[in-house]
Amino acid sequence: MEFNVAIVGYTAGVCSAICQFPQAYKVFKTKDTHSISLGMYLTMTIGVILWFTYGVLIEDMPMMLANGVGLVPCLYTLYLTIQNRRAHKTYGK
Amino acid sequence: MEFNVAIVGYTAGVCSAICQFPQAYKVFKTKDTHSISLGMYLTMTIGVILWFTYGVLIEDMPMMLANGVGLVPCLYTLYLTIQNRRAHKTYGK
Repeated sequence: MEFNVAIVGYTAGVCSAICQFPQAYKVFKTKDTHSISLGMYLTMTIGVILWFTYGVLIEDMPMMLANGVGLVPCLYTLYLTIQNRRAHKTYGK
Repeated sequence: MEFNVAIVGYTAGVCSAICQFPQAYKVFKTKDTHSISLGMYLTMTIGVILWFTYGVLIEDMPMMLANGVGLVPCLYTLYLTIQNRRAHKTYGK
């Protein structure tokens, strides 16, 4: 595979891995999940878990790493969104 | 590739493609982006564009489809989040 094509793939992987951190940080700071879609976070978390599993099955380290790293903040945001829905407390309002 | 391994990959792709729609719908309905991280949406949108480009470069149709489909609601949510930040109007408060 040409070098620049691989660069596009790896950069995409880095973006996908790190994109969850700013949202998890914002939710951690504000405890406000009011405008976050629970449907999105459920589907996305399942997707990240499946991509991680797929990476393990096809022994693709970058895929395992990107999704393994991204799963942690994803689960945190999902957890807090579920907590808030249950408690109907919209922090930071 | 074994059939069930491919199933894991395709299901992951479907989750990644559709997960953006519930968030875009919620933002469309409430116009409230207060708890959404602009940092996440910028990074995620760049990631989806790069995955789409990577799919084109390696001629991988599922990757093109999943990211092409997911890009539309992603851009909408990003657009509205930027609009709200600019206008400092937090709808639905």
